[in-house]
Amino acid sequence: MTDQENSTPALPIPRDKNNDYTEEQAQRRRTFLVQQRDASLNHISSYSIDPASTAGNIENFIGAAQVPIGLAGPLQINGEHAQGEFYVPMATTEGTLVASYSRGMRLLREAGGVKVSVVDDAMQRAPVFIFQDARQARDFGLWIEDNFSTIKEKSEQTTRSGALRNIEQYAAARMRYLRFNFTTGDAAGQNMVGKATSAACEWIASEYPSAFPEGGLQRYMLSGAMDTDKKHSQLNTLHTRGKRVIAEAIIPDNVMRSVLGIPTEMIYKMRQISHVGSFMAGSINTGVHSPNALAALFIACGQDAANVAESSAAISYADLDADGNYYVSITIPSLIVATYGGGTGLGTQKECLELMDCYGQGKVNKFAEIVAGTVLAGDLSLSGAILAGDWVTSHDQLGRNR
Amino acid sequence: MTDQENSTPALPIPRDKNNDYTEEQAQRRRTFLVQQRDASLNHISSYSIDPASTAGNIENFIGAAQVPIGLAGPLQINGEHAQGEFYVPMATTEGTLVASYSRGMRLLREAGGVKVSVVDDAMQRAPVFIFQDARQARDFGLWIEDNFSTIKEKSEQTTRSGALRNIEQYAAARMRYLRFNFTTGDAAGQNMVGKATSAACEWIASEYPSAFPEGGLQRYMLSGAMDTDKKHSQLNTLHTRGKRVIAEAIIPDNVMRSVLGIPTEMIYKMRQISHVGSFMAGSINTGVHSPNALAALFIACGQDAANVAESSAAISYADLDADGNYYVSITIPSLIVATYGGGTGLGTQKECLELMDCYGQGKVNKFAEIVAGTVLAGDLSLSGAILAGDWVTSHDQLGRNR
Amino acid sequence: MTDQENSTPALPIPRDKNNDYTEEQAQRRRTFLVQQRDASLNHISSYSIDPASTAGNIENFIGAAQVPIGLAGPLQINGEHAQGEFYVPMATTEGTLVASYSRGMRLLREAGGVKVSVVDDAMQRAPVFIFQDARQARDFGLWIEDNFSTIKEKSEQTTRSGALRNIEQYAAARMRYLRFNFTTGDAAGQNMVGKATSAACEWIASEYPSAFPEGGLQRYMLSGAMDTDKKHSQLNTLHTRGKRVIAEAIIPDNVMRSVLGIPTEMIYKMRQISHVGSFMAGSINTGVHSPNALAALFIACGQDAANVAESSAAISYADLDADGNYYVSITIPSLIVATYGGGTGLGTQKECLELMDCYGQGKVNKFAEIVAGTVLAGDLSLSGAILAGDWVTSHDQLGRNR
Amino acid sequence: MTDQENSTPALPIPRDKNNDYTEEQAQRRRTFLVQQRDASLNHISSYSIDPASTAGNIENFIGAAQVPIGLAGPLQINGEHAQGEFYVPMATTEGTLVASYSRGMRLLREAGGVKVSVVDDAMQRAPVFIFQDARQARDFGLWIEDNFSTIKEKSEQTTRSGALRNIEQYAAARMRYLRFNFTTGDAAGQNMVGKATSAACEWIASEYPSAFPEGGLQRYMLSGAMDTDKKHSQLNTLHTRGKRVIAEAIIPDNVMRSVLGIPTEMIYKMRQISHVGSFMAGSINTGVHSPNALAALFIACGQDAANVAESSAAISYADLDADGNYYVSITIPSLIVATYGGGTGLGTQKECLELMDCYGQGKVNKFAEIVAGTVLAGDLSLSGAILAGDWVTSHDQLGRNR
Repeated sequence: MTDQENSTPALPIPRDKNNDYTEEQAQRRRTFLVQQRDASLNHISSYSIDPASTAGNIENFIGAAQVPIGLAGPLQINGEHAQGEFYVPMATTEGTLVASYSRGMRLLREAGGVKVSVVDDAMQRAPVFIFQDARQARDFGLWIEDNFSTIKEKSEQTTRSGALRNIEQYAAARMRYLRFNFTTGDAAGQNMVGKATSAACEWIASEYPSAFPEGGLQRYMLSGAMDTDKKHSQLNTLHTRGKRVIAEAIIPDNVMRSVLGIPTEMIYKMRQISHVGSFMAGSINTGVHSPNALAALFIACGQDAANVAESSAAISYADLDADGNYYVSITIPSLIVATYGGGTGLGTQKECLELMDCYGQGKVNKFAEIVAGTVLAGDLSLSGAILAGDWVTSHDQLGRNR
Repeated sequence: MTDQENSTPALPIPRDKNNDYTEEQAQRRRTFLVQQRDASLNHISSYSIDPASTAGNIENFIGAAQVPIGLAGPLQINGEHAQGEFYVPMATTEGTLVASYSRGMRLLREAGGVKVSVVDDAMQRAPVFIFQDARQARDFGLWIEDNFSTIKEKSEQTTRSGALRNIEQYAAARMRYLRFNFTTGDAAGQNMVGKATSAACEWIASEYPSAFPEGGLQRYMLSGAMDTDKKHSQLNTLHTRGKRVIAEAIIPDNVMRSVLGIPTEMIYKMRQISHVGSFMAGSINTGVHSPNALAALFIACGQDAANVAESSAAISYADLDADGNYYVSITIPSLIVATYGGGTGLGTQKECLELMDCYGQGKVNKFAEIVAGTVLAGDLSLSGAILAGDWVTSHDQLGRNR
Repeated sequence: MTDQENSTPALPIPRDKNNDYTEEQAQRRRTFLVQQRDASLNHISSYSIDPASTAGNIENFIGAAQVPIGLAGPLQINGEHAQGEFYVPMATTEGTLVASYSRGMRLLREAGGVKVSVVDDAMQRAPVFIFQDARQARDFGLWIEDNFSTIKEKSEQTTRSGALRNIEQYAAARMRYLRFNFTTGDAAGQNMVGKATSAACEWIASEYPSAFPEGGLQRYMLSGAMDTDKKHSQLNTLHTRGKRVIAEAIIPDNVMRSVLGIPTEMIYKMRQISHVGSFMAGSINTGVHSPNALAALFIACGQDAANVAESSAAISYADLDADGNYYVSITIPSLIVATYGGGTGLGTQKECLELMDCYGQGKVNKFAEIVAGTVLAGDLSLSGAILAGDWVTSHDQLGRNR
Repeated sequence: MTDQENSTPALPIPRDKNNDYTEEQAQRRRTFLVQQRDASLNHISSYSIDPASTAGNIENFIGAAQVPIGLAGPLQINGEHAQGEFYVPMATTEGTLVASYSRGMRLLREAGGVKVSVVDDAMQRAPVFIFQDARQARDFGLWIEDNFSTIKEKSEQTTRSGALRNIEQYAAARMRYLRFNFTTGDAAGQNMVGKATSAACEWIASEYPSAFPEGGLQRYMLSGAMDTDKKHSQLNTLHTRGKRVIAEAIIPDNVMRSVLGIPTEMIYKMRQISHVGSFMAGSINTGVHSPNALAALFIACGQDAANVAESSAAISYADLDADGNYYVSITIPSLIVATYGGGTGLGTQKECLELMDCYGQGKVNKFAEIVAGTVLAGDLSLSGAILAGDWVTSHDQLGRNR
């Protein structure tokens, strides 16, 4: 291992501007690394995908990370798009996670399955326009409303599958924050809506009488941080980013007892105590651990794993009837998924999507339903482990996700 | 593709209780999948890692996801643990991301590098105890304070590297929420602190006079949701979860202009407008897009990608002096990383860590510094793209991360 | 003083169902109190208002609190409704507060006045409807959209001045949260919109096919807590509750120095450091201390002082140009005020409103402008005190609001 | 009424630097107002308090606001300080409010009373120190820990009743935010802790090696916005500001039915639906309408009504046993009250406090208990009204608080 602290300045990473996506270039960079860093790249260089296939997904390609995939399930879903039983591939390095989700899926199966519904769908880009004072900003807002149809037309000229649904407006100081909401088909759509909103902003800036502050540096920014791309926000929880998906199930008391070893009354009551903890902490998720499911499915299925940040928000709600039947639900307000574009077409990623018949056009809602069903399975399983854990003596076996 | 909607009930996934981590078992499950789902698993089955090495990382192993790795950098760091220039492996499928981070690293390099400091370190498990009324809960809190040294002893008996630092207390209704803070060495430590806190709680429950509600179902829960494991919370931003890391740089105006094409005054002023947007939206991150760096580094380096949820919080702060020098910083209050345990020892993951001399004991702060430096590089680069984008005419080339 | 601990059970407070709003009844209750509690009520009984005038404002009237009123100003406003200079009556018991606001008003006056604009206006009632599952809730949402005009008609039959503007919808679990937005003229309108929404809900419940959970206890609640009445919420900051008012001013450096004793650059830079503190703390107000102005004006002018809870949210934004001119603004997203109804017609309250020509029909935006201008004056004055305070040696004179 | 829009510039408000707190001066200002504004001040000038008594409470005194006081109760409290039955004076102009609170107090009385406990107590001032980089700021934090006893000594030299309990530290960028926690006896203590913290900061600044940014404008600010004075923050909810008070009661089903007309099961279940609404909205209060009680009691009893902003946060929690007994609680994490200093000694304010034997030294916890008990009474009453309201036909009678 080179002592980096004392090394001479590092060299630029080799690139080939004409065709950087070849095995030769990948090898050239690996050789460079081995020389520079005395690195071993035996595993990183052991991939089956064609470097050419990674164009548009990566730059300075050197190889592939191998993340173990475990199979969970089957998950029985009663969705509007996903119906039946699904084996769910989860890519993770966290032990017990797949086992825990499988246990939750068994619980749901014995309870008759999980019902999942996609109830909203929107992807945003949120520019901000700057004026001399609040009144000018307010007037601009009215102008935007009046010219919505033209703005829609201008933005949609840049995309085949995106459609501008509405523009929210938020006022502060002398700024007007707009939030363009698009539907984006089977793609996650962040780039698509960026391009479409940019086209709209260019048109707006050219048409609207300029009146921003003297000496001002910019008339507008393509993002005024209300998107809120790659960031959780209360705004996302309220108004949806990506899909808003709700998974629901009704668990009879005897099924809860036999699979998780606890009565439904216990889980019902104890989660209310957890909610108080969530509220005091200022937590963005009143469920249990949705990011475990999201990250594992996102990595396996070619989703953008950075979107775990936004997708991790969740709203838990449950009820208990007089017979001990436990209605339980999870609402994911900002689930960002795609079955087309991005990393979905790469080797293992496409195989994982196809395993659930979720690759390509017309599949995104089906995939969203499977993701949300998986989340609910895992939340139930971990809740059970936390509660039953108090009774068992073998605490050494108590992992976080078992 | 089997029509799942009409299929007979799915079968249990094959397992071998004695030795499930063999190539034979992996193949047996793949055969099962091929038969059940008519699936192609050519890429998933093309891995170089030994299935035996995945024990403790996965269950029902069927193969590996291949996530393309691109090389960014070099990143010049002036850390307390990382010093010099580092090539940073990023595993992602999002095009332009590696290029954008590389550009940010060039900016930092030309400005003399990024200074990074780990300023706090804690991992939590947060049980809740339930009483008959608020006064009993308050008395219990005093007892916990009085018995801290014994509680510390009991919890630390379960771990070699974990040490109980302090116990926060939060009161609501008739509950007392405790939050055990541990240092965990080079491991992320969630399981370690769970086990240690469980041991402490067992001792507490056995020693403290029982006085929880009549008819109550549980005296305590190992988690009352104030951990807040796999969930962002304001509490994490305030009191740290994992490492609290701060990356800082001073960018001269001419460097900003030459690399990003904008004056420092512009980025300084426009981010204040973005902050207003962040505040209105209720965003947890006043930076730009840290999860892109986090997810790519976490996947490459065997971190738990689910922790993007917590690690994605960030606090941005900048200043501009009279000469146009731009002080810029990012504070990551909940960065959860490890260089030992978890997925860090697997094939490609270990290689990526070793590439930066970050594998194993005594390396976790070094790795944390590299992660934070990378985040700052990316935030600068994307800010520049958003701002400069308004001037260029070729918006078609404007990707989200370029 | 009676020892209440050992007293016999307290008696019901005397009432007269036929005419409780007489001096005789007030005296009867005071006599009762004097007997029961050995209380002195000399000041409480010294009021000039007619008990009959309090009908609709209070029950079990026994007298009046006397809150000292100080006069601040004059405040120079360049509003759309308030124009010119105003003396502002503030009812408070917090020393230095009136002096501090007066100093801020002097600063604004010397800077040419404060520009204030009302940019949005809405008052809400937010019922929730409950269904068997998320899909039924989603379908219901579509039905609400389709039937908006009838719903508007039904709700508006209950009010002369209220008008239903739009209905927001929020989905979680099997519930559909609606948020009715009304304009309410010169009244604050909480009761008005409650009645109007109730009428709408009754119609909806009678028309929409019932499908709420078996064994469910209620089909809907008139409030599902998304109003969010008497409570701050991020939703209010985003979507306005009451008036959204923005006060702006441009303070030249020499004026800032002469009145507050600090350069504009200092206040500009230091507030950015405060914003980081606000963000970490999870504060709802990035301004300084708006509730001081709100409470004092609300008490003086017959507003509902409980609305300080909602009205206290604020968004601060500032900019500094090359000449040291300081653009400063405060955005109050949830200012709940009235110039008609409620307590506005009572003796001293009406006099205070009339002092600013703000009593009665058509005055509410004028009053809102004065309130916001006062808030900005106080925020500037206190900021100056905090910053200049570091220089002075006489810290004993440093009160919170000086 | 003078047309202010066209008036000549307003004149300065008359003052007498030597003795401004006389009836003569008050009259002089009223005469000025009558001349300037043609105002009627008949009610404002009808007060019984001596202007001299308002010194330290107001400047530019012109008279008093008369806010009607209604009597609620009796409230039966089982506190540690307040025990027995109390008549509660509420100053408000919102009709039905006193009646509604009285109804809630009847419910509590029939259920055996409300148990209230003060579980924490702290008042803050939160300065921020600025350094050249994050490491210097971190080192400074360690120095503060090491020098706590001297800092405590320095700060306590400025006060008789205040005591420095601990200093929290929060790190971001190159700043160190400190949060000084004091106990303040029977005073609210904001000014006291400001003075004490200022003294400590002066000592710190003189002792600690200066190392703040070159060209920096200030080494520290007395408030870095983490106090968070007059502002709600999550930090207050977590760590208490003022008193942390918990009110609890157990309501039998038959009592709930007879007083509020609803079964306990209904209120138990429906509040969980409200909590989902609260969470989506990002509300700071999962209770119902505590600010109504707070504002009315604060105005009557000489509290700083601006503190409704901070005191309005609340945490609701309830449970239901198999017999239908409803455990209900409200936790107020930031209740700022005083029974000494501020406005507590003024005419009507002192009378109101004395009515409950809450004036003066040693009474602040007693008063805090009464306030919290009143809040719980009102939350129960309004919840009942919302729920029972759906059944009644006379919606015209449905006021917000009935």
